[in-house]
Amino acid sequence: MSDLEVIVEPGRQDIVVRRTFDAPRDVVFRAMTEPEHLARWWGLAETETVVDRLELRPGGTWRFVEKGPDGREDAFRGVFHDVVAPERFVQTFEYEGMPGHVAMETHALEEDGGRTRYTSVSVFQSVEDRDGMVRSGMETGLRQSLDALEELAGSLT
Amino acid sequence: MSDLEVIVEPGRQDIVVRRTFDAPRDVVFRAMTEPEHLARWWGLAETETVVDRLELRPGGTWRFVEKGPDGREDAFRGVFHDVVAPERFVQTFEYEGMPGHVAMETHALEEDGGRTRYTSVSVFQSVEDRDGMVRSGMETGLRQSLDALEELAGSLT
Repeated sequence: MSDLEVIVEPGRQDIVVRRTFDAPRDVVFRAMTEPEHLARWWGLAETETVVDRLELRPGGTWRFVEKGPDGREDAFRGVFHDVVAPERFVQTFEYEGMPGHVAMETHALEEDGGRTRYTSVSVFQSVEDRDGMVRSGMETGLRQSLDALEELAGSLT
Repeated sequence: MSDLEVIVEPGRQDIVVRRTFDAPRDVVFRAMTEPEHLARWWGLAETETVVDRLELRPGGTWRFVEKGPDGREDAFRGVFHDVVAPERFVQTFEYEGMPGHVAMETHALEEDGGRTRYTSVSVFQSVEDRDGMVRSGMETGLRQSLDALEELAGSLT
């Protein structure tokens, strides 16, 4: 069991995620931001993630395609704002199936004696957008993918 | 008097701005996004705005410098996410004096019989960040700059 916390307060338009990873910060940062690693943990367990683009710099764009076992493809994209390796990156996030609904995500990593404390804040354009993301079952997917990230980070140390 | 509305609800992390401009939508969009026009209305009345960068495309970056009458310089920067001319653009916004505090802004324009209805939604990473922006006197600056934008748009038609 991880210590994953997903904080969704009523009436707000953000989702705060906290989790500790049993791996050093620089390794977690690499697992989160390098295409060959990211493709292995991002998304649901039963889907395959293809990293179409990942330009890790302010103004760089990213696009990932999730391929389901039934052949369905869902694409996600965004733009990087700030990148301060291995501490923090800020990016926008948009599901191509719902264009115009953009969230902004801040991902922060703190070193804690060989372990890493991760905090993400995702802010949505409205409470409705935020609640829609929660209803889509994001917590299940997040739990799976962050567990897979920890396992991968363990293999990189 | 303009019909400017600045909506700041307690405990939320967004600021919604609405205003009608007495100019067609394509002209307002140009005034908002073309460097030579933008420098003339953006910022406070007593400051000079220098557009250091304005790359209007997804992943394009922008940076504006405000020069005060006392020689003080304040810089602002961000990244464009979506650009759907002349309807909408999404960008991040950061004051270089407070790095890491990033807001995401959606600017939308609707045509209304030769006039333009403008709505912006700015979402901040926290309620505290939002409230700090409000306390900085943003409404005064916004009123001045959107009045100047309308005047400029009138000269472009």
